[in-house]
Amino acid sequence: MEFPSKLIENAVKAFSQMPGIGKKTALRLVLHLLKQDVSFVEQFGHAVVTMRQDIMFCQTCHNISDTEICSICTNEQRDRSTVCIVENMRDVIAIENTHQYSGVYHVLGGIISPIDGIGPDQLHIASLIERVKEGQIKEIIMAISPTMEGDTTIFYISKQLRDYSVNITSIARGVAFGGELEYVDELTLARSIATRIPYENYLINR
Amino acid sequence: MEFPSKLIENAVKAFSQMPGIGKKTALRLVLHLLKQDVSFVEQFGHAVVTMRQDIMFCQTCHNISDTEICSICTNEQRDRSTVCIVENMRDVIAIENTHQYSGVYHVLGGIISPIDGIGPDQLHIASLIERVKEGQIKEIIMAISPTMEGDTTIFYISKQLRDYSVNITSIARGVAFGGELEYVDELTLARSIATRIPYENYLINR
Repeated sequence: MEFPSKLIENAVKAFSQMPGIGKKTALRLVLHLLKQDVSFVEQFGHAVVTMRQDIMFCQTCHNISDTEICSICTNEQRDRSTVCIVENMRDVIAIENTHQYSGVYHVLGGIISPIDGIGPDQLHIASLIERVKEGQIKEIIMAISPTMEGDTTIFYISKQLRDYSVNITSIARGVAFGGELEYVDELTLARSIATRIPYENYLINR
Repeated sequence: MEFPSKLIENAVKAFSQMPGIGKKTALRLVLHLLKQDVSFVEQFGHAVVTMRQDIMFCQTCHNISDTEICSICTNEQRDRSTVCIVENMRDVIAIENTHQYSGVYHVLGGIISPIDGIGPDQLHIASLIERVKEGQIKEIIMAISPTMEGDTTIFYISKQLRDYSVNITSIARGVAFGGELEYVDELTLARSIATRIPYENYLINR
């Protein structure tokens, strides 16, 4: 695609470097911004750039934060004896949006994946052990994707925590609400029968 | 959706103001930018903001441009006796990408649409008449969408140009290449039979 203006071309290029945005979508976004006030576009640019420049990572849980310790870790209302282990901040947002979890988090920053060259040392596992060593934590909830890499990560962490008196649990696996039984994969269906739960528990949060 | 960081929230808001980008996509874009270097994100912001700040509109054809007169209007190779009338710069890009048109353009900046409060005075029609008055232009090609508003616009402009010795043509309407005949709407099909062309013309550019 050729553009009548170098400025437009650069802006389109910038947008089309984003995941899921092709040249046509990028052009649509650029033309949308062209129609807006200069101040609107300046605000847009400012929001994006300061976000990247000023973002910090919580020194306790490694979640993204505006401050050295994040708002979840500093919240007195949260139960600091329960720590939910997640892969990234997107999972934190997903769990927070359920409004059902009152503990704190520990963001690994990825999962163990030898193919991608990600070993335990690249993840925030050592700092998790340090947190457990302090003795306050009673339960570790593994909220990791049920893939090969996820299971490896869970296994590795649970092994590291063997010597500490901490209860390790995992989020429940099973058939999703709204899922049609006939389309559920065999492994999930088999596991959901094997690990069936009392009907009273099923009714919780329905 | 709640975010652990005000900075993230602002950036997500900025992206989700764009057409076709919801909160989830916005978050995905923001997290993508978070993974990039600060300099990359600064470049992104710079490209977008300078695009809006420095963009100009060609004083002759009203296309967007980096200079007072756009690169198409200043190009000595282009045939200035043929002017293609289009709605917006997207149409210019589309036609330029065919590499088949060597004339110049005139960007209306919209089409006549009483419902949206857009009359002839809001469009660059007066300046088109001025261009025609200069006497250099021999042909005006109407490349306007074949909608009710488009037809109104074409009719209005052709009426304004009645007194000048300029040849007014329209881009051909008909069944698109690759289109299956049975799915073509009746009006297009009827018109494509009524305005059938010699087979030799059909072979051009195939």
